[in-house]
Amino acid sequence: MSKVTQDLEKYAELIISSGCNLQPGQELLLSASTDSCEFARMVTAEAYKQGARRVTVRFADEKISRLHFEHCALEVFKDFPEWQALLSNSMAEKGAAFLSIISDDPLAMVGIDQSKLVEHSRSSYEACKPFQQAIAEGKLVWCIVAAAAPQWAQHVFPQLSAEEAVDKLWQAIFSAVRVNTADPLAAWQQHRKSFDARKAWLNSQHFDRLHFHSELGTNLVVGLNEKGLWQGGGDITTSGTEFFPNMPTEEIFTTPNRLRAEGIVYSSMPLIHYGSPIKDFSLSFKNGKVVDCSAKVGQDVLEAILSIDKGATRLGECALVPWDSPIQQSGILFFNTLFDENASCHLALGKGFSDCFEGGQKLSEDELEAVGVNKSATHVDFMIGTANMSITGIKPDGHELPIFSKGNWAF
Amino acid sequence: MSKVTQDLEKYAELIISSGCNLQPGQELLLSASTDSCEFARMVTAEAYKQGARRVTVRFADEKISRLHFEHCALEVFKDFPEWQALLSNSMAEKGAAFLSIISDDPLAMVGIDQSKLVEHSRSSYEACKPFQQAIAEGKLVWCIVAAAAPQWAQHVFPQLSAEEAVDKLWQAIFSAVRVNTADPLAAWQQHRKSFDARKAWLNSQHFDRLHFHSELGTNLVVGLNEKGLWQGGGDITTSGTEFFPNMPTEEIFTTPNRLRAEGIVYSSMPLIHYGSPIKDFSLSFKNGKVVDCSAKVGQDVLEAILSIDKGATRLGECALVPWDSPIQQSGILFFNTLFDENASCHLALGKGFSDCFEGGQKLSEDELEAVGVNKSATHVDFMIGTANMSITGIKPDGHELPIFSKGNWAF
Repeated sequence: MSKVTQDLEKYAELIISSGCNLQPGQELLLSASTDSCEFARMVTAEAYKQGARRVTVRFADEKISRLHFEHCALEVFKDFPEWQALLSNSMAEKGAAFLSIISDDPLAMVGIDQSKLVEHSRSSYEACKPFQQAIAEGKLVWCIVAAAAPQWAQHVFPQLSAEEAVDKLWQAIFSAVRVNTADPLAAWQQHRKSFDARKAWLNSQHFDRLHFHSELGTNLVVGLNEKGLWQGGGDITTSGTEFFPNMPTEEIFTTPNRLRAEGIVYSSMPLIHYGSPIKDFSLSFKNGKVVDCSAKVGQDVLEAILSIDKGATRLGECALVPWDSPIQQSGILFFNTLFDENASCHLALGKGFSDCFEGGQKLSEDELEAVGVNKSATHVDFMIGTANMSITGIKPDGHELPIFSKGNWAF
Repeated sequence: MSKVTQDLEKYAELIISSGCNLQPGQELLLSASTDSCEFARMVTAEAYKQGARRVTVRFADEKISRLHFEHCALEVFKDFPEWQALLSNSMAEKGAAFLSIISDDPLAMVGIDQSKLVEHSRSSYEACKPFQQAIAEGKLVWCIVAAAAPQWAQHVFPQLSAEEAVDKLWQAIFSAVRVNTADPLAAWQQHRKSFDARKAWLNSQHFDRLHFHSELGTNLVVGLNEKGLWQGGGDITTSGTEFFPNMPTEEIFTTPNRLRAEGIVYSSMPLIHYGSPIKDFSLSFKNGKVVDCSAKVGQDVLEAILSIDKGATRLGECALVPWDSPIQQSGILFFNTLFDENASCHLALGKGFSDCFEGGQKLSEDELEAVGVNKSATHVDFMIGTANMSITGIKPDGHELPIFSKGNWAF
């Protein structure tokens, strides 16, 4: 067996054991792209090895998806297929684990009419409410991981041949997810624990707001919730199953108050949104709401995000990632949020996290909104961290403490 | 553009235009394997070019399917996923065209517990009754075509490399479906008409039964229905849309009387059933029912077919294909029913065709059964034609007329 095959098998095992923490007799819904078919087979085999009752594999093909968006009328995207909603909702109902293997071409959807993507995202969210609700209530295990595929790999490593680029991207993935350690499962247990001290400190400080500064011009105050919680290093269901929603994960994050962001923030990395790039952009906030936006590339894509619903103009996440994070240090720009968000402090427009609010998993979407947790059909991360970012925590009484200094943890 | 790409595009156009006769604004459900992903993209693009409202592509992966059958408990196959049933049934409800691109590895399921395959087939049929019913009532367009894929190609051409085998199988497919003619669409119009004279003659004769003889030992009398109809060369929906359920198609066929088959029949080609081969087999019939069976290879698979339900032990189809059919003359054994059934006279165990009975499309399954058209969850063709097959038509008064002599049409 080749080294790569061995690493792929270790990775598949890690995903099913640690990412999904799959229980014997549990069902698994695996979403994958046709271009990562072989890895999907390995993951399916591993899930059965670990006792899955049934693995349902849902393949999508980006080139076919692009054809849909090119040719279908806007109204078609308003009509989300009932069978697709039933798939997600019935799997949620039976407590399946939801695993997505992503391998997106960063440019898959360039030039597509953004209003169709917006409609799709909106109708999908509406139709899959029971599934979304189960996630928000902490009832489900879900996990997003990556697989190297030619289009993506060549975007990351444009100077290499497709084959070399795929190999190199696999190596970068293996490194980011600690597959190249002696015992990846133990490495992830250790990784989980490594977040504890910083999370505990942040939660103990009860900051009222954070003040972000960067050399790009960012000068933003993000208001937090009184009952806000900092999370990171993995998640746990209400019934006690530990899992990792994202692999890799390097962030400690919370949900800010939806009504309290003031100032301007500049992006520090390109954002790839549904296969279209947005570059060098800024957002101005007033009373928590985006009141102005500007992008050198992808202004229409950025505006489309903001148009999804009113929640899309407000913040749902505020995440801290030091500049010395292993993914930032790899020097690779992945053009993929799963990686890039773990290389940089970031914010997200759209939906907030119920588990970042004390008792939030027992509240409805509307109740969460009322207490300050943003409600939206979307959630779009964008990177703001830089080598010289400073973040200051401000207490309700105005007392200030440094959180980040020169891009890294200050405590 | 290479010659192969040109031919693939002509083939995609032929499938959507002639096979599906897709109407502007109609939906298409396309089922394909991950290993024919590229061709599925071309067909999807063509469907949109011809005005499809939406193309829903359902990918399956044989290696993953095999994992399911290897690892899931039998009970899992009794529980057909509701979302899958909803997909088929809702598409039928909205009058979508159903297109399947097949590329099956003939040995994909060798060694799999047949009872699981039987349960799957049974529960799928039950759950998709509205879809099945719409087909039986002649309301739907459905079309099965093939795409070359490595596993299948290397089984057909074991002496060639995977790449060479795939190329050669594509050429064989192009030839069988007349893509290598100057105007394939016109060739298929012509082909449709070429069946008319023989169908008309057979329908005018009102044979009571057919007597099959072959040098392999076949000596079988198949009773026909008084109101039976011979079909072939394409189909037409009750609303008047002409389509081709199979491409290629070289057969003229009817549904025999389910209670009247007597004698023994020997297979003339291997039968691949859900990825398991059955070779050199015979079936003995009494009062229309299989009372004995024997296979040199795949006895368990054959017995599994017969165990699906009581209808699986009786005949649902009797099809006439001359030995000089172009597919037989190609000398290629395709190990795939779509091709092999068009190279040889064949019978099918299981479900009969409502459109092979006068007024049959207005009858329920049970009503059809009562008048002699077989009812079953399955339909399995098996080849019996040989170079020396003779078939005699016998009228109700005992008068005999030759239909086949030395393997070919005798009239």
